[in-house]
Amino acid sequence: MNYRLIAKLLGSICYLIGGMMVFSLPWAWPALSGTNLSRPVETGGLIALCISIAICGLVGLVLRRWGKNAAIVLYRKEAMAVVGLSWVLATLLGALPFYFSGTSRGRENSTAPRPGSPIRMSLVDCMFESQSGFSTTGATVLTQIEDPELVPRCILFWRSSTHFLGGLGIIVLFVAVLGQGSAGKVMMRAEMPGPSKEGSQERMQHTAWVFTAIYCGLNAALAILLKIEGALVLSQGMSWFDALCHAFGTMATGGFSTHDCSIGYYNSQVIEYTITVFMILAGTNFTLLYFVLIFRPGKLWMDVEWRMYIAIILVVTMAIIGIAMYGYEDFNPERKLGPWEEFSQALRYGLFQVVSIMTTTGYGTHNFDAWHNFGRGALFLLMFIGGCAGSTGGGLKVIRHVLFVKILRLEIEKSYRPNVVRHLRLAGYTINDPELYKNILLYFGLILAIFALSWLALLLIEPDATWEARNQLDNKLIDSASAVAATLNNIGPGLGIVGAKENYADFNALSKLLFTFLMMLGRLEIFSILVLCVPSFWMNR
Amino acid sequence: MNYRLIAKLLGSICYLIGGMMVFSLPWAWPALSGTNLSRPVETGGLIALCISIAICGLVGLVLRRWGKNAAIVLYRKEAMAVVGLSWVLATLLGALPFYFSGTSRGRENSTAPRPGSPIRMSLVDCMFESQSGFSTTGATVLTQIEDPELVPRCILFWRSSTHFLGGLGIIVLFVAVLGQGSAGKVMMRAEMPGPSKEGSQERMQHTAWVFTAIYCGLNAALAILLKIEGALVLSQGMSWFDALCHAFGTMATGGFSTHDCSIGYYNSQVIEYTITVFMILAGTNFTLLYFVLIFRPGKLWMDVEWRMYIAIILVVTMAIIGIAMYGYEDFNPERKLGPWEEFSQALRYGLFQVVSIMTTTGYGTHNFDAWHNFGRGALFLLMFIGGCAGSTGGGLKVIRHVLFVKILRLEIEKSYRPNVVRHLRLAGYTINDPELYKNILLYFGLILAIFALSWLALLLIEPDATWEARNQLDNKLIDSASAVAATLNNIGPGLGIVGAKENYADFNALSKLLFTFLMMLGRLEIFSILVLCVPSFWMNR
Repeated sequence: MNYRLIAKLLGSICYLIGGMMVFSLPWAWPALSGTNLSRPVETGGLIALCISIAICGLVGLVLRRWGKNAAIVLYRKEAMAVVGLSWVLATLLGALPFYFSGTSRGRENSTAPRPGSPIRMSLVDCMFESQSGFSTTGATVLTQIEDPELVPRCILFWRSSTHFLGGLGIIVLFVAVLGQGSAGKVMMRAEMPGPSKEGSQERMQHTAWVFTAIYCGLNAALAILLKIEGALVLSQGMSWFDALCHAFGTMATGGFSTHDCSIGYYNSQVIEYTITVFMILAGTNFTLLYFVLIFRPGKLWMDVEWRMYIAIILVVTMAIIGIAMYGYEDFNPERKLGPWEEFSQALRYGLFQVVSIMTTTGYGTHNFDAWHNFGRGALFLLMFIGGCAGSTGGGLKVIRHVLFVKILRLEIEKSYRPNVVRHLRLAGYTINDPELYKNILLYFGLILAIFALSWLALLLIEPDATWEARNQLDNKLIDSASAVAATLNNIGPGLGIVGAKENYADFNALSKLLFTFLMMLGRLEIFSILVLCVPSFWMNR
Repeated sequence: MNYRLIAKLLGSICYLIGGMMVFSLPWAWPALSGTNLSRPVETGGLIALCISIAICGLVGLVLRRWGKNAAIVLYRKEAMAVVGLSWVLATLLGALPFYFSGTSRGRENSTAPRPGSPIRMSLVDCMFESQSGFSTTGATVLTQIEDPELVPRCILFWRSSTHFLGGLGIIVLFVAVLGQGSAGKVMMRAEMPGPSKEGSQERMQHTAWVFTAIYCGLNAALAILLKIEGALVLSQGMSWFDALCHAFGTMATGGFSTHDCSIGYYNSQVIEYTITVFMILAGTNFTLLYFVLIFRPGKLWMDVEWRMYIAIILVVTMAIIGIAMYGYEDFNPERKLGPWEEFSQALRYGLFQVVSIMTTTGYGTHNFDAWHNFGRGALFLLMFIGGCAGSTGGGLKVIRHVLFVKILRLEIEKSYRPNVVRHLRLAGYTINDPELYKNILLYFGLILAIFALSWLALLLIEPDATWEARNQLDNKLIDSASAVAATLNNIGPGLGIVGAKENYADFNALSKLLFTFLMMLGRLEIFSILVLCVPSFWMNR
């Protein structure tokens, strides 16, 4: 194992994280973020960020110094170690600003008429929040983010910045450099961006830059669009602070907001539909976005995965809306709306939530946990589908499900026609790769095993009191399952006590560590993290 | 497709089922079953059985007549069709006695002081009950089986007989004739019973007879043992009727009882531990039982699957008992018992329930649905493990899980050592069979897909009212999941409204049909049933 090279590369990650923190500094001045605060500057947050930047720089310096003369040969093992460890490192460094600033999770007895004293985030809370950001999950332990006395604005900006950085990491590391993993390989277009005749090294770098540009461009475009729309439809407008944070949360399919009610705070159809469109873009393969940008949008419709992605969104939305309008009052609570108005409401909230869960963003405009049970069940299953391969979305990815269904159909036929040889076909091409075939099945198996074991572990380590406090002990099994699904697939909100209007604050430290681990596992598609726990991985063979 | 041969073989199945019904006839005389009934004979049940026998004979005759001159060449497709269709046929024929006798599901408002009129079983109810018997699931729609006015004794005996026949069918068809399917093949001992040097046809027949003898012998042994124990420990003794029915339910890992409180009715430790031991035997590979019978019990301990099977039972039992004694009052509801007494109670009930669920029997002595949530979650997952391959137990089978874990471990290593070639090893032997490797993963994938889709379907077709009637709508998601798991894996009871003290009576007809289909799918390890739904399967290529 080439430890020195690993250290050197990790050192660069430290610099990157520290560099990103610099952009949070200006927001310590309330004037900039448009916050009403008696003090002219958030001293605590500012100092915390400065210390954190210093630590990032120091750790980076030490790591790079140690790895100075490393041989530049990166084998598969080293690459996996770098990917896995960089996420671990990011979690630790990203937690520092939360910790040093003394950010508060909320207040004791927050629902009482006179809430008690603030509850400081523990180290585990900080790590959870940091990992949730980098893994673009968007699960939070913060209950009152709108109060600048509890959560400094500059820290809140850092929280959303971790989404930006996490999404960028996925796009560059996984898509451009590592080539999208097993599911992605099959979708790897022959026409990837980049000078195609040259060596793979240069092409890879070119691809990385193109994707970075697309990603940053979309972030900027959404922020500007939100700012304009805010000025047009909101009485108070939307601050750059909010616009940027929500753009970061959307394009990374993260889900951190700057308001306790998430996107529902604005109560604006224009903003909701805008974010819906950008969530769909964020869950789309970036290679396809590149083709759209070079004026070849037809590639979108030719792509099997993207067609299925859109089809699932539409079918599930229609099913949920149809059932709700037929037999439930989910979108018409006071039974005052006519059918057309009810449909318009249902479409507005239903589509947003389906896209939000399917793309693994996790923004909320409606309390989907109070929907009819078919809707809740469908959203639960959507969590495992996720976005397209090569996007910032989490979950198992649509392409894996497409191939999974094709494999099952082939094998059912094979059971009674054992001698008929048929190959997997995708979009007219034959995929004659037994490794891919096995890897798809394997990935489902791994997710299943991790899901089941984590569920059991959570039932064991999280005491009943967490549910008893809300008189919902009956729901422990399903809530725990949804919490595991929502973190493993990088969504954020789940059902019940982690539902649309709830958060992860009440879990104990051990459970939060489990969630942190699951978010990391899901984000890096399992292997890069799991191998870190295998002793033989670290031994020089 | 050789339809005539299929018809001929199905005709024999009709005769077999009709023949088995004959054994239920004597129990129409209450004197024999020890029932207090004003009438000297259960006329309704007797006539229903006679009509059913006649129909079985007639259908059998027609089928055999049509298939008289069939070519005796059985290809894979025909074999699958026979296996699948024989279960469909058995479900239909087995439902006849319930239907013609006018057996009642229970009474209206059964909990009221003066219960209302009886509710007759619908055709779907009868099919559900019949399939539940043949698939050795033990899920029931009958709520008051102890009342001979509602359920004639001879019909109740037929109900338990379906277990006997179903278990025998599995042992003979799957284990002896088809060679245990993909998971079983690997465990297929080189030393299978039978004259090993001769051709596989004779050896197969010999194996089938040996297994039939073991199965019948164990049924008889348990019935006699229960009769003796009943005479010793129960004040009223145990009737042959009860002894036989419970022996059938145990050895087939079925779970139909003759009492509303299942085995808990007797409240006898001796009987409970006896049934526990026989449930463990019923979940053991019959090849191993054969070795024990020829005085080579060492084979048991040498068997990887059996060791794991026992280990899982012990570990889960200990975990459930330990957690319950540490923090819950599950086995000490009034807090009156000392630690030793509590442990003794916990072991008695805990072990019984763990074995009952793990072997997919489904008998009950304790309301496990009221246990702590870790226990409920663990039992839920145990449902998917099931018994050993080559036993009457359902579920995915222990060996598949053993291989699954080995495959996952191999692949995690492979992810960072892609060039190291390692093969699956089991009990010291190398299994170099990529088909098996794929089939294990595929089976998990299929079960996962069927489970998820059935869950969603059940959420859709079963109205909320079923839960609202008990004020438990919150539990719809988890209850539905457990109902699907309990039928797909052939257990019987699940959680919540299908919990230990509940049944499937309140579901609507569509849901019951879904459960019937799932029980069949699970019992025949999916493929034989799934292919029946594929049009191209039926086409002569």
